[in-house]
Amino acid sequence: MSSSIDIGPFATSLGLQLDVADGDQVVADWVVGPHLLQPHGILHGGVHCSVVETLASVGAALWLGDRGRVVGVSNTTDFYRATTEGPLRSTALPVHRGRSQQVWRVQTTDGSDRLVAQGQVRLQNLS
Amino acid sequence: MSSSIDIGPFATSLGLQLDVADGDQVVADWVVGPHLLQPHGILHGGVHCSVVETLASVGAALWLGDRGRVVGVSNTTDFYRATTEGPLRSTALPVHRGRSQQVWRVQTTDGSDRLVAQGQVRLQNLS
Amino acid sequence: MSSSIDIGPFATSLGLQLDVADGDQVVADWVVGPHLLQPHGILHGGVHCSVVETLASVGAALWLGDRGRVVGVSNTTDFYRATTEGPLRSTALPVHRGRSQQVWRVQTTDGSDRLVAQGQVRLQNLS
Amino acid sequence: MSSSIDIGPFATSLGLQLDVADGDQVVADWVVGPHLLQPHGILHGGVHCSVVETLASVGAALWLGDRGRVVGVSNTTDFYRATTEGPLRSTALPVHRGRSQQVWRVQTTDGSDRLVAQGQVRLQNLS
Repeated sequence: MSSSIDIGPFATSLGLQLDVADGDQVVADWVVGPHLLQPHGILHGGVHCSVVETLASVGAALWLGDRGRVVGVSNTTDFYRATTEGPLRSTALPVHRGRSQQVWRVQTTDGSDRLVAQGQVRLQNLS
Repeated sequence: MSSSIDIGPFATSLGLQLDVADGDQVVADWVVGPHLLQPHGILHGGVHCSVVETLASVGAALWLGDRGRVVGVSNTTDFYRATTEGPLRSTALPVHRGRSQQVWRVQTTDGSDRLVAQGQVRLQNLS
Repeated sequence: MSSSIDIGPFATSLGLQLDVADGDQVVADWVVGPHLLQPHGILHGGVHCSVVETLASVGAALWLGDRGRVVGVSNTTDFYRATTEGPLRSTALPVHRGRSQQVWRVQTTDGSDRLVAQGQVRLQNLS
Repeated sequence: MSSSIDIGPFATSLGLQLDVADGDQVVADWVVGPHLLQPHGILHGGVHCSVVETLASVGAALWLGDRGRVVGVSNTTDFYRATTEGPLRSTALPVHRGRSQQVWRVQTTDGSDRLVAQGQVRLQNLS
């Protein structure tokens, strides 16, 4: 099931492994690899935004299903803890699933279950 | 000068070419390559966030200079126009450069000078 | 206890009644009065932002205590449901309580426990 | 013209005087009165959000005109300078005016033309 979800070339390059993916929740495991760093050896903030964007989009698309397709309109991501290595887990949950728009929140935690980043994506439902 | 700036492996993989880079402005040209797409053939929103994050960080770091280093605390990016190909230009300008924090705004336009995405990054100055 | 908290003239004019207020949680009850409306008879979005700002500030100040004072740096509030009357309840919980900054999230629900608005405030701890 | 615009009871209580108001720009002058303060004698952050919300809504409604009405979906406001008194000027300009959504940005400056707060509102066009 979740293995059949195509997240496209960019999100694939981030190394996301979708463990759960349906219209109520999306969970992905991933690893801070050297190709995801900024010059000081820390995970690039844009990677956090990209993971947030990907998981929110997957969840919103699965919830909308055959009724249309979703397009992201804004992404707000906060960075709470600099990360240099190790496994991360990101979990997306819906905040709002309306007729015309959805809002999903994504939390990313490290191996010690500490909050590393958190973001929110607003998506428009196009029919 | 700007050619000497190390943006790290992740931002490099986006194909950013820094044309201007100082503490007052950062301008980069880049191209919507196939490796940056989401499954529907559109530029992945996370790429926009990542470009915003990179340019804001470069500008903020150059402005702070030897006085310390900067760390991003939040990134808010809005997507205005779906893009499937072609050249883009991103320009970062400071909104606020204070003692403890900076805020930079980044606009991305397409080859027809239309606004494609716009974002804002808050960074903390660490001494 | 919570009755002893001074929220100042502006927040007082909103009619907030603090039911719980400590460094881990702030809960307030309030009512959509006619003085809080915009021209179409709907609760003004700025009132939602103001309630979010107030509760987050109270919680952050109580958590920091004698160690300093807090100052808000940004407020992001989303509006999910137009409201014209009736009681609302707003609950603030910490997302992040760090050495230099705090982030608090505030949810506002209506009498039917539906999400009406939700916001997040970033505050700086000044010593 | 701008004197004929009804901003409703809440925004009126803030003391906003609209100097310019059309679908391309909204400018308002206002004063930091004692009823707008938080407990430490500083202008309440929620007031800034409320001014941002009001001006963006006025501009968006004037631009949409007879084609429908607008409803705010999110407000993001940053606070740059604590203010205790004096005149302020707020200026709203469109960032995006699309078929289904608008985004307006509002800057507030003090009597010395320093940036005090800045915010952005996303509005939905309802037909």
